[in-house]
Formats: sequence, C-alpha cells, structure tokens
Amino acid sequence: MTSETALALPASPREHLSSPVTRSVLRIQHRMLTATREFLSGQGFTELLPPIIGPVTDPGARGAKQVDVDYYGHRYKLMTSAILYKQASLTAFDKIFCIAPNVRLEPLETANTSRHLAEFHQIDVEVANASRESIMSVAEGLVAAVVRGVVDHLPAELELLGRDAGAFADLLAGSFERRTHATAVADLHSLGHDQSPDAEIDWAGEALLSRKSSKPFFVTDYPKGSRGFYDRENEQLPGFLRNFDLIAPEGYGELCSGSERENGYATIVARMRETGENPAKYGWYLRMVRDGIPPSAGFGIGLERFTRYVAGLDSVWQASAYPKVPGVVLP
Amino acid sequence: MTSETALALPASPREHLSSPVTRSVLRIQHRMLTATREFLSGQGFTELLPPIIGPVTDPGARGAKQVDVDYYGHRYKLMTSAILYKQASLTAFDKIFCIAPNVRLEPLETANTSRHLAEFHQIDVEVANASRESIMSVAEGLVAAVVRGVVDHLPAELELLGRDAGAFADLLAGSFERRTHATAVADLHSLGHDQSPDAEIDWAGEALLSRKSSKPFFVTDYPKGSRGFYDRENEQLPGFLRNFDLIAPEGYGELCSGSERENGYATIVARMRETGENPAKYGWYLRMVRDGIPPSAGFGIGLERFTRYVAGLDSVWQASAYPKVPGVVLP
Repeated sequence: MTSETALALPASPREHLSSPVTRSVLRIQHRMLTATREFLSGQGFTELLPPIIGPVTDPGARGAKQVDVDYYGHRYKLMTSAILYKQASLTAFDKIFCIAPNVRLEPLETANTSRHLAEFHQIDVEVANASRESIMSVAEGLVAAVVRGVVDHLPAELELLGRDAGAFADLLAGSFERRTHATAVADLHSLGHDQSPDAEIDWAGEALLSRKSSKPFFVTDYPKGSRGFYDRENEQLPGFLRNFDLIAPEGYGELCSGSERENGYATIVARMRETGENPAKYGWYLRMVRDGIPPSAGFGIGLERFTRYVAGLDSVWQASAYPKVPGVVLP
Repeated sequence: MTSETALALPASPREHLSSPVTRSVLRIQHRMLTATREFLSGQGFTELLPPIIGPVTDPGARGAKQVDVDYYGHRYKLMTSAILYKQASLTAFDKIFCIAPNVRLEPLETANTSRHLAEFHQIDVEVANASRESIMSVAEGLVAAVVRGVVDHLPAELELLGRDAGAFADLLAGSFERRTHATAVADLHSLGHDQSPDAEIDWAGEALLSRKSSKPFFVTDYPKGSRGFYDRENEQLPGFLRNFDLIAPEGYGELCSGSERENGYATIVARMRETGENPAKYGWYLRMVRDGIPPSAGFGIGLERFTRYVAGLDSVWQASAYPKVPGVVLP
C-alpha cells in the first residue's frame, strides 16, 4: 500500500467493471456483506432499509458538504449518515443494523487521499441500552467474523489481489487493543508528531499509528469539540466523549466510528447549539427525542474502507463498482 | 384488503415505528431479504451495491418526476431505477442482483392509491445471455422461495397481522400462469372493462385481474409504447416487447416488471428518440453500449409492494420503516 503516492483515478466504467481486480474485490465485498448479515442476524439484530433523503441528516461530516434536493417544494437532504434514523429505530427494535448509502460532497483536495469517496456505504449498527464497552465488543466480533469469512471462503481472490492472508493472523487471534485519545496523542508526541490534544487525530498521525500496528485497534475518549452532538459526553470526565474509532493496521487508517449516544432532549439541544446546528431544523428528530428514545450505543463501519483493508487495495475507489471520487464527474 | 378505500396516512415516526404491526412487517421484510439473498447467492449471483446518484437514470417511471441534485456543479439525478447500471454490471459478472433504493416524485394524486411511495426499493436482478422465459423462471422461483421463507420462519408474525398463510397455498404448489397482454386485454373486455390494447393495463383493469386470481401470474408482450427504451422489441412481432409483469393475486396488483433487454447501440438510440429521450444525456451508458454489453434479461420486484402482499397490508407505506407517501412532507 502506498498511501502517500498520488494514485490513478478510476478508468472508464467498462475498464473498471471488467478488470479482474474489480471482480475479485466485488466478490470479496459481497462475501463481507454476507458475513456481516450472518453475524448480526445470528445475534438477534433486525436489518432495516435506511432512507435516502430526509428533512435533515447528520451534520458531523468534517469538511464535507450536504446535498440538497427539492422534495415536493421542501428542501430535503441526501443522507450523510443514518445516525438520526438509527436512534429513532430503537423504538421498534433493541438491536438494529443497516447497510446505509451516504453522499458527502468531500472537498476537491480529498480526491487523491486514496480514502475518500463522495458516495459510500456504512455498516451501521445500534443497540438500545448498550455501553460503549459492549458495542466495541460487537464491532470487534463483527470485524473478525467478516475477515474470517473472506479468508475461509475466498483465498483465491485474495491471492489474485496479492493480499497475503497472513496479514490477518493477529486480527483473528484475539481481541483488539484499546487506548485513549490522550494516550494516542502522547504516543504521537513521543514519535515526534505534533498532534493537538483537543482535536481529532490528524490523518498523518492516524497513518503513523496505523502503520505501527499489526491488527486493528480502538482509540477511545475523543475530546468533545471533535464530534457530532449525538456522541454522549463522559459525566466523569467532562469535555471527553464516550466514543471510539477503530483504526486498521498497515497504514489503512480509520475503519469505524462509534459511541454511546446522547438521548437527553435538553442536552442534545445544547450540544446542537454548541456545534453550530440550528435545533429548529431537526423537527421530527427532536420530537422523538423529547418523547423519549432509549439510551444506546452504536457504530458505523465504512464498507469501502473496510473492503480496501481486507483486499489490500491502494485506493478506496477500487472498492466500489461505480466509484465516485470527490470532484470527478462522469461525462 | 380494501384497496378502493381512502386510507389513513402514516402516523408520526414514533407511532409508526413502535406499532406492533410495523414491527411484524419489518421482521417479515428482513426475512424476505434474507431469503432473496440465499436464493440468488445459491444460484451464483453476485450482489452489488447500486449508486444513489448519477448523471442519468431510468426515464421509464410513468408520470413520476426525477429529482435533481447539484454534484460538484453538475446536474445529477437520484436513481429512479438501477436499470442502466444493471446492464453495465454484466461486463463484470453474468448474474448480478442488488437491493436498489429509488426516489420518484409520484404525482400528488397517488398519495391515496395505497400502492405508491416516493422512496422505495427494488430487488433488481439481471442475467447475461438470458431469455425472457429463463428470467421469468428465476422470478417465479425467487417469489416462491421468499414466501416459503416467511411462511416457514415467521408464522407468528403472519398470525399477528391476521394474514392467513393459506393464502399462499396455490403460490407454493406450482408454477405461475402466463398470459399475453393481448389475452389480458381480451379477458378485461369480456369482463366489461374498457382496456386499450395499445397501452399499459390500467390500474382498475390490473386490480380486476388480480382479484380473480389465487396466485401471482405473468402478463407478457406489452405493446412498445408502454415501456422504456431498454425493453427489447420482439423481432417476430414488431410493436410488442419481450417483457413481462408479475401481478399479485387478491387485488394487490403489480409486483414486478422485467424484460429481455435491448443491447444494440443503434436500436437503443432510435428507441430513446421514439420515447422522447435525448441520447446526448446518456453519455457513459451509450459509450458502454457502443463498445458492447451482453444481451440480457432481468427484472425488478418492488420490495415494499411485495412485502405488502406477503404481510396482507392495506397500504404499501406500512411496508416501510420511514415511509414517504407522495407529497407528504415530514415537518
């Protein structure tokens, strides 16, 4: 993997779809989704089909623009994540998941990061009354089951892609390390990387930590300013969130973000205001919250990023049948 | 089922999601999708994730408006169906399927038909080098496998909904009847219904035929003017298409549309012009067709309509977790 190199953009749809690499990648992705559904359905989760558009969506995408649509004369948005609907759906079932398509107009300068797509999917999971620790265990078990499914069923596809199945030995052998954001910042400082303790770990720092690891690892307790209003603040540690990221090894970087969720009406409204969101835009969601939604925890795994890691791909666009690289328009 | 009655609209998201009826319906829909994936994956199909937006989409939705989005300064559309991508994807795999989300701004007067949603999903299937007859067999086998999956695994949910599993006895006992559009028109004339032989069967006629049947049935060979440019014309019977609909019994009406596909460049361009489409808008698709895509046949099953039939629901919006009834905007 050569994440620092400027990478080629996708060829024409024909060249992309008929390439043996794409075929192997899409077979692997199909198997990953099969394993996801088997794992979660086996644990009593109900799969729901998320909406594509709605009056409001997740504001949390850093730097990315939302897409407006005219829905019978009203301004709706394309979903940037399923978070609001995941929380709402817990009034139907305690354990839900969806494979959610999202559109985010990422800035043009992300076209060459090898890890951004303007259209992508998340494996979105949410569990009522769950703690961060229990939902991290679900994420850990799910990632291991998916990798196991590919290694067991598709060794020939991995070989065709030049992906050594031995790369997953540590992942399949046991649990993933947990470290706090503060520890990760200290680790980066000791490596000579200048990381702010009050912000998201920057991409260079994330890549540094990712390359030093042989299996995915969790980073927990991000500072409050770095995330959306729905990540619950730690009462024992004000200013820090009960959340986590899961970072892939080998330099592939972030696979997943998750959290315990805020479900208190007054707190959510206050957090919206703190993050510059206008609560008046969140009508249906805030009415649901006001009338009571269960506390919960959940996560979203970026499917194409996860596929990129499993298949050992140079760029995330290789993990989509019809890739949308930010700013690249199909004539 | 009382399809002629004006039906209530969905309650608030909370009331809808927390209703025992919705829970049972969503459990049934989850099982239907599981059975769909088992059936198709078992037959060697690869599941793909369809795009949400693109430069162009299926123009075939009768009376419904497409939704524009601004994609980095270019006008893209929300997908109204996955047809163009299904044909293109056959350059990767011979047998593909997807669970495709679609948005169609149906006219306001469809809000009370009990069978229209502005946002819905299709079980979309396409097979290279397949005949209409072979793809109809796939549709028949798939529908039976899905109904069998629900009847076998979720009898308690059907009972809670008051849906008698005996309603599926004929469906599960054998193959579905095939009749041509011309025969269906003659049947309607003999029933005193005034149906044009040159057009889609109108809703009242479809409901009439649907109510007289005890299991789903196919109607084949629709006249050319009634469908999109991608349905192949019958060389032996000019003016008629190598296509079909699958109609549910008991008045539930259309479940599925399918066809052999046109894959000749010149014919597709001519058919686009005949149907009022501007070929210049179809750049990437026509380039793929010009460079050669395989002949194919395929179909799309309306998931929420299929769920409505299986669950015995009054209205199709009951088959969606977050229903979008045409013209109804969530405050």
